Amino acid sequence: MEKALEALRRLPYEDLDFARIDHHRRLRKGFPEVIYCPGKTTSQIVAIARQMLQPGSCVLATRANREIFQAIYKMTPRAEYHPQARAVVIPPENPESLLPPVGSVVLVSAGTADIPVAEEAALVAGLMGSRVERLFDVGVAGLHRLLDNLPLLQEARVLVVVAGMDGALAAVVGGLVSCPVVAVPTSIGYGAGFAGLAPLLTMLNCCAPGVAVVNIDNGFGAGYMAALINRLGERG
Amino acid sequence: MEKALEALRRLPYEDLDFARIDHHRRLRKGFPEVIYCPGKTTSQIVAIARQMLQPGSCVLATRANREIFQAIYKMTPRAEYHPQARAVVIPPENPESLLPPVGSVVLVSAGTADIPVAEEAALVAGLMGSRVERLFDVGVAGLHRLLDNLPLLQEARVLVVVAGMDGALAAVVGGLVSCPVVAVPTSIGYGAGFAGLAPLLTMLNCCAPGVAVVNIDNGFGAGYMAALINRLGERG
Amino acid sequence: MEKALEALRRLPYEDLDFARIDHHRRLRKGFPEVIYCPGKTTSQIVAIARQMLQPGSCVLATRANREIFQAIYKMTPRAEYHPQARAVVIPPENPESLLPPVGSVVLVSAGTADIPVAEEAALVAGLMGSRVERLFDVGVAGLHRLLDNLPLLQEARVLVVVAGMDGALAAVVGGLVSCPVVAVPTSIGYGAGFAGLAPLLTMLNCCAPGVAVVNIDNGFGAGYMAALINRLGERG
Amino acid sequence: MEKALEALRRLPYEDLDFARIDHHRRLRKGFPEVIYCPGKTTSQIVAIARQMLQPGSCVLATRANREIFQAIYKMTPRAEYHPQARAVVIPPENPESLLPPVGSVVLVSAGTADIPVAEEAALVAGLMGSRVERLFDVGVAGLHRLLDNLPLLQEARVLVVVAGMDGALAAVVGGLVSCPVVAVPTSIGYGAGFAGLAPLLTMLNCCAPGVAVVNIDNGFGAGYMAALINRLGERG
Amino acid sequence: MEKALEALRRLPYEDLDFARIDHHRRLRKGFPEVIYCPGKTTSQIVAIARQMLQPGSCVLATRANREIFQAIYKMTPRAEYHPQARAVVIPPENPESLLPPVGSVVLVSAGTADIPVAEEAALVAGLMGSRVERLFDVGVAGLHRLLDNLPLLQEARVLVVVAGMDGALAAVVGGLVSCPVVAVPTSIGYGAGFAGLAPLLTMLNCCAPGVAVVNIDNGFGAGYMAALINRLGERG
Amino acid sequence: MEKALEALRRLPYEDLDFARIDHHRRLRKGFPEVIYCPGKTTSQIVAIARQMLQPGSCVLATRANREIFQAIYKMTPRAEYHPQARAVVIPPENPESLLPPVGSVVLVSAGTADIPVAEEAALVAGLMGSRVERLFDVGVAGLHRLLDNLPLLQEARVLVVVAGMDGALAAVVGGLVSCPVVAVPTSIGYGAGFAGLAPLLTMLNCCAPGVAVVNIDNGFGAGYMAALINRLGERG
Amino acid sequence: MEKALEALRRLPYEDLDFARIDHHRRLRKGFPEVIYCPGKTTSQIVAIARQMLQPGSCVLATRANREIFQAIYKMTPRAEYHPQARAVVIPPENPESLLPPVGSVVLVSAGTADIPVAEEAALVAGLMGSRVERLFDVGVAGLHRLLDNLPLLQEARVLVVVAGMDGALAAVVGGLVSCPVVAVPTSIGYGAGFAGLAPLLTMLNCCAPGVAVVNIDNGFGAGYMAALINRLGERG
Amino acid sequence: MEKALEALRRLPYEDLDFARIDHHRRLRKGFPEVIYCPGKTTSQIVAIARQMLQPGSCVLATRANREIFQAIYKMTPRAEYHPQARAVVIPPENPESLLPPVGSVVLVSAGTADIPVAEEAALVAGLMGSRVERLFDVGVAGLHRLLDNLPLLQEARVLVVVAGMDGALAAVVGGLVSCPVVAVPTSIGYGAGFAGLAPLLTMLNCCAPGVAVVNIDNGFGAGYMAALINRLGERG
Repeated sequence: MEKALEALRRLPYEDLDFARIDHHRRLRKGFPEVIYCPGKTTSQIVAIARQMLQPGSCVLATRANREIFQAIYKMTPRAEYHPQARAVVIPPENPESLLPPVGSVVLVSAGTADIPVAEEAALVAGLMGSRVERLFDVGVAGLHRLLDNLPLLQEARVLVVVAGMDGALAAVVGGLVSCPVVAVPTSIGYGAGFAGLAPLLTMLNCCAPGVAVVNIDNGFGAGYMAALINRLGERG
Repeated sequence: MEKALEALRRLPYEDLDFARIDHHRRLRKGFPEVIYCPGKTTSQIVAIARQMLQPGSCVLATRANREIFQAIYKMTPRAEYHPQARAVVIPPENPESLLPPVGSVVLVSAGTADIPVAEEAALVAGLMGSRVERLFDVGVAGLHRLLDNLPLLQEARVLVVVAGMDGALAAVVGGLVSCPVVAVPTSIGYGAGFAGLAPLLTMLNCCAPGVAVVNIDNGFGAGYMAALINRLGERG
Repeated sequence: MEKALEALRRLPYEDLDFARIDHHRRLRKGFPEVIYCPGKTTSQIVAIARQMLQPGSCVLATRANREIFQAIYKMTPRAEYHPQARAVVIPPENPESLLPPVGSVVLVSAGTADIPVAEEAALVAGLMGSRVERLFDVGVAGLHRLLDNLPLLQEARVLVVVAGMDGALAAVVGGLVSCPVVAVPTSIGYGAGFAGLAPLLTMLNCCAPGVAVVNIDNGFGAGYMAALINRLGERG
Repeated sequence: MEKALEALRRLPYEDLDFARIDHHRRLRKGFPEVIYCPGKTTSQIVAIARQMLQPGSCVLATRANREIFQAIYKMTPRAEYHPQARAVVIPPENPESLLPPVGSVVLVSAGTADIPVAEEAALVAGLMGSRVERLFDVGVAGLHRLLDNLPLLQEARVLVVVAGMDGALAAVVGGLVSCPVVAVPTSIGYGAGFAGLAPLLTMLNCCAPGVAVVNIDNGFGAGYMAALINRLGERG
Repeated sequence: MEKALEALRRLPYEDLDFARIDHHRRLRKGFPEVIYCPGKTTSQIVAIARQMLQPGSCVLATRANREIFQAIYKMTPRAEYHPQARAVVIPPENPESLLPPVGSVVLVSAGTADIPVAEEAALVAGLMGSRVERLFDVGVAGLHRLLDNLPLLQEARVLVVVAGMDGALAAVVGGLVSCPVVAVPTSIGYGAGFAGLAPLLTMLNCCAPGVAVVNIDNGFGAGYMAALINRLGERG
Repeated sequence: MEKALEALRRLPYEDLDFARIDHHRRLRKGFPEVIYCPGKTTSQIVAIARQMLQPGSCVLATRANREIFQAIYKMTPRAEYHPQARAVVIPPENPESLLPPVGSVVLVSAGTADIPVAEEAALVAGLMGSRVERLFDVGVAGLHRLLDNLPLLQEARVLVVVAGMDGALAAVVGGLVSCPVVAVPTSIGYGAGFAGLAPLLTMLNCCAPGVAVVNIDNGFGAGYMAALINRLGERG
Repeated sequence: MEKALEALRRLPYEDLDFARIDHHRRLRKGFPEVIYCPGKTTSQIVAIARQMLQPGSCVLATRANREIFQAIYKMTPRAEYHPQARAVVIPPENPESLLPPVGSVVLVSAGTADIPVAEEAALVAGLMGSRVERLFDVGVAGLHRLLDNLPLLQEARVLVVVAGMDGALAAVVGGLVSCPVVAVPTSIGYGAGFAGLAPLLTMLNCCAPGVAVVNIDNGFGAGYMAALINRLGERG
Repeated sequence: MEKALEALRRLPYEDLDFARIDHHRRLRKGFPEVIYCPGKTTSQIVAIARQMLQPGSCVLATRANREIFQAIYKMTPRAEYHPQARAVVIPPENPESLLPPVGSVVLVSAGTADIPVAEEAALVAGLMGSRVERLFDVGVAGLHRLLDNLPLLQEARVLVVVAGMDGALAAVVGGLVSCPVVAVPTSIGYGAGFAGLAPLLTMLNCCAPGVAVVNIDNGFGAGYMAALINRLGERG
């Protein structure tokens, strides 16, 4: 134990006064600390991003609007904006530093309106070295659209299912495959969806085993979890 | 309007002091007033049932335990107990007074534990003159069990879908048929089912149109609604 | 079963990448797939509508604002805007393709502020071939306004009751008629209405049987369900 | 102000260590402190009741079971048990000390199962000097039972409406009368009644003005409030 | 009963298509139908107000912004705007038609931010013929401000207590007086106030008897209820 | 930092397989680890208590019933049962090991039914070396009972306020004193108390500053917090 | 796609009338259908288990009490009862049919009372061929107990974190490791834990990425998900 | 008691009609009444501030935007704006009137987005005479950032822990220190944070004792409570 704790104690981080940047997270978790933008000022975000910039790693800012992108872009023109995923990415100087895409993470969305969340998951999983495929607008109200793509589902190593409204897609997909499913409820829907509470509960109560759930609209968390699982398939 | 209001004003009922029995409901709604047992004493239930007893009609007591059945049975040995549906039925003296079963109400349940609610619905729909069929334990975790029975679903005049946990069966069935679907959430499930809240919200947020919802565990309400709809098919 | 599943597998749909258009739904459910606008970009909506456009069918976009209407209108001047129902309709080229109005769906609203939801239901039921009548602002606080229209209620084949605040209208109407009632809670009301939760619960707990409920403010769902039920009356 | 505060400071109470009995409440509020039994041991209840016993006043213990009654009865055989209202009353030695019944409080209940709560309200209002009338089982599902008793409702000085399930009776009654209505939700009903939450919200969102609400199943509070209001009619 | 029902059936109302104006409410409830503005278009509001205008009565529009006021003012320059209460009043042509103020309704508010709700209640109670007094910003955090005004509280015929945040003022006031208290929770407060849910629950659970509750921020309902109660004191 | 972390790493604990006993907590937090009984088997509880027994320290088991007490008593007859607080205490062999009572923690309860929670707090604060005083049944419905004890309140170093129902006592007391107040909501009350949610929200929304809240019915947590605060007064 | 759908359609299941046993699930999901006992009668459970019994596979009944075990044991003495996990297992006749344990699933529980849920997860993961290790009672209140076991955590292939009360253990563990974490909230705790809602929300809002959540007390679901993920590590 | 009550009655306050300014609070609670801005008009805020202005004391307005600051600044150029804390401070004319900073209140925040709430707490504690230190962005996802600052935590007299999302920081910190911890949940986070409900529940259910909680985003309340506790350490 001595060694593990020693390692923990010595992990590098940088103190910006309003933020402590965890440079070691890349080593520890396989990915640099992401910047979750809501609640931070644009200048705080830029300052954090600047400290994170390192030749061989990439920086990700989630829930970023165009104004934030432009401020980061001023600092470094390597910055890219992904409008659907509402994310800013600063890729490493040498693109070869990025992990090559392996395995198979399939992103399944119930409706067109769920795509922004699914794209956030796709972006994250891709940056973390996962091969990503998309199967959008296959909600259970038209089951044949889903069944027509069974092989894609059944050959995935891990699935991310993104759905608002009834959230039933997670249960149906969970029953059709034997790989792990990460379910993401979205806040899309009529009144009694209660901003995502309905699909969240549906997914937590999923009859099919092999399904676990992340927070409402949390595409980042789903992509991250899926990438961790997907990477395990490379280990053996 | 004069006549309608006049009719309303003159509707017969009987005052038992603790209950006002609405003899006209049979005429007005096609069915005698049902006795919902919880919160009533056994002697109140028996007294209400006694006033309702008429040669040509049938009496139904829902959420009735065996003790209530035995008390009613003492009053009239015509009384029958339906343990799964937790209901007491006193059929009319002349069984021919019951409406003959017509049309097709199909009861679909997601799991074995949902059967008591489904049976309550079946009993009510049957007493109201509907031909009833059952398709139990076809939850979406094993979709082939459901798809294998597609013709039964697609030939129904109205469907009742009973499901706890994720409640996703209503959405899937709703997407496969073109008849009206009455969905009943049940209180079956793990903690975050919150005693039926999860499937209730799932069903209310159902992506497939043509689905309407009744209260948690309310097999009676579902069977009643289904029977009203089913009967319309006989009118034309 | 072979045939049903075969049919399911062969159902046509079109893949727009961000949406899979379910051309078969018209056959399967009696109506083309509707476009639920929230969460979709205007250009996605227009693209979906374009693919759906077929000489003999009509397209419906719900929760559409004027900006969306104008974009669709640019694509086809047949498009009409229904501001109260917040919907865009593209009628078929040949108006005779629309189903002729039959039966009787009566829309009852508790207050003036509930009218947009009621109008959405009316529009949908009408497009699906139902004769529609309206009875607005007859909330239970002035019961005589409702009782004065008893004959209209009692001659309907199916009723849609739209109410916010206490939602009590559904229970009262449910007790006066013998036809099925589809209840729609609205988000109109003071603080403890909790954006429609109060009338939703009222309607789910309705003492009168023969009432089923759709999502808060979901006029579309109510109109659809009512039209399905109403059509049954033509079958016999 | 000097005098009022002086009065406040000098109000008598008695310290039992586990309870401080507020002898002045009779003067201040027109009624002795009531003993709310849940959470108190039987011996605490008896000790409190003993201190409250005074020749000219009456003592009331609410939510009391038979065991509590028997313990109080041992202390004084004047004690009476009201099983429906689940209350123990120790009337004053001289019955003439009770206030004579005046005015008119009408108790209206939606269903038979709501009667215990209504009876608790009736008992309290009666002990506080109100003439009490009962109109039970007149829920809105059979509106004619209610309309048939319009004169009784319209001649009341104050109404108490007790209802579970949809709680709609309060709104309907509120629209028919011009006197104040005190509404009491009860915990009677199916799952989505959420133990009284549904009728509570219905009543709080009541469209008809002139309705105020007390806690779920709180017959005591309703009877007390009604008696205070009723008494005002005697003042003028 | 015949007569009461007859009266009910014959109550006058006016059909504007989108609204049914209940001219009889003034007779039945002592006050004309009020216009609750949210969810209605400005032109609907003006049309309703126009139909309601009668020489001897007054019209009240609640939750009205300045734009609505200006539209009504164009119709009749008698209209007055009460910005704190967010209400438009059109007084009768002959001010003597208003009921003269009698009795005593005291409005007590916990904080300055609760004043708009309190003023709405004051306006309504005043229009309905109650003498109104105000005691603002006497929340329990500084109890001496309240105790210093004990005589005002104790001489009232009915109290309206308006409070957000902890809502504790209702309980404290309820314990100090012997008249009925109408409590109004407001949506003022920090996060866990949940937009008025916290003071709503506080008030419903009030230990002091003689307190009943209306909806969150519902100053109108509180003023109406208080006026009905206050008027009883004139009857005797 | 080196030293602090070193200390952390070396903290002693004992591994019972189903429990890891934290012997250092006494040093770190000033008190041995308490045994929270719910969810543990009696034999687990006894085994944990046995490992904790040390000559100079005392062991506390909370939410313990008599059966648990008897099992512990078999192990050591030093064990004492506190039925009101539902706790078992094993005092140290040498009573002088207990911290001598200093400062002043005053426990204030709104009602008699709140006493068990208050006694749990009193027991814990006492064991942690606080002088404890009790002021029970002084709820705000009879304010003079509270005001009559102002000096006791105002001389305390820290107050614990225990209240169910409306929970208003915390706000009133918080406004009268200048010392810190720890508020404990209890689950006592009628339906809309929702098992302590109502007083919890009241206390969190307390207008008077200087009040912080612990979990529903958590007398242990309140006593612990109060003792920590009280002890600070000895430091200077 | 043809083939996949064909496969789906032909999946074997057995119709017991009240249950449809999905013999193919073993092939499809790597494990036979589990029997979730609540809501099923003992005789239904035994009948389902009998149909599932096959020489080479194992049967699992979750949430089973001793009475259910004894009934199954009567059918086959191979049945074993796991009291902590509240589960019945019927191992295959030939124990070698079980998958040999590979990889590493580490079960971490916050408290002793969380052990039953953790043991259910351990049992399921073990039956599905995972090597399982346990680290119990390492809640964050005594962080050194957790840090002292860092190597065990950091060498796991997948972690299951079981915690009630604050549920904070999932976030802390999630920050220390780079493998996927499956979090299970439990219903252990004081009032405002709301039967597991508190730790459920904590875990869903986990700041550390790489954490996904299953239903409250759902040890089965967590063990299943963990085993699926763990198995991926064998593939490569 | 006489004297205490006398004192209470004579406490000075000033009546502004819309506000009663409690000049005595400074004496009673050690701090002038703070102005909570939401719901008050700018002119009301300025009027209240003007009455509070006294040579030797300071005035604090919380949740104040720049517009409010500018209005106050017009009245007195001594006013300062603290944009992060969203507060206006009017220091006393003679800065020496402020209490000199003593003891040690350490403010710990989980993330950068929680800083505004933490700064509000810091401002308040500082104005009340506490020495304040800050430790920001040390959430549990990177535990080494926290452990690296153990000495700062362990030498504090009282801690304020500010965290949104999972709120787990309070539990972890609570387990590491032996001083009292005041926890403040913030509304920062994804959907299922429900605007601060998630961290609120986490903190209330904190396993580590010695933690009490204030309202969501209530930096003011946390700073006030911490200052009261901190000051006790000076007494002895």
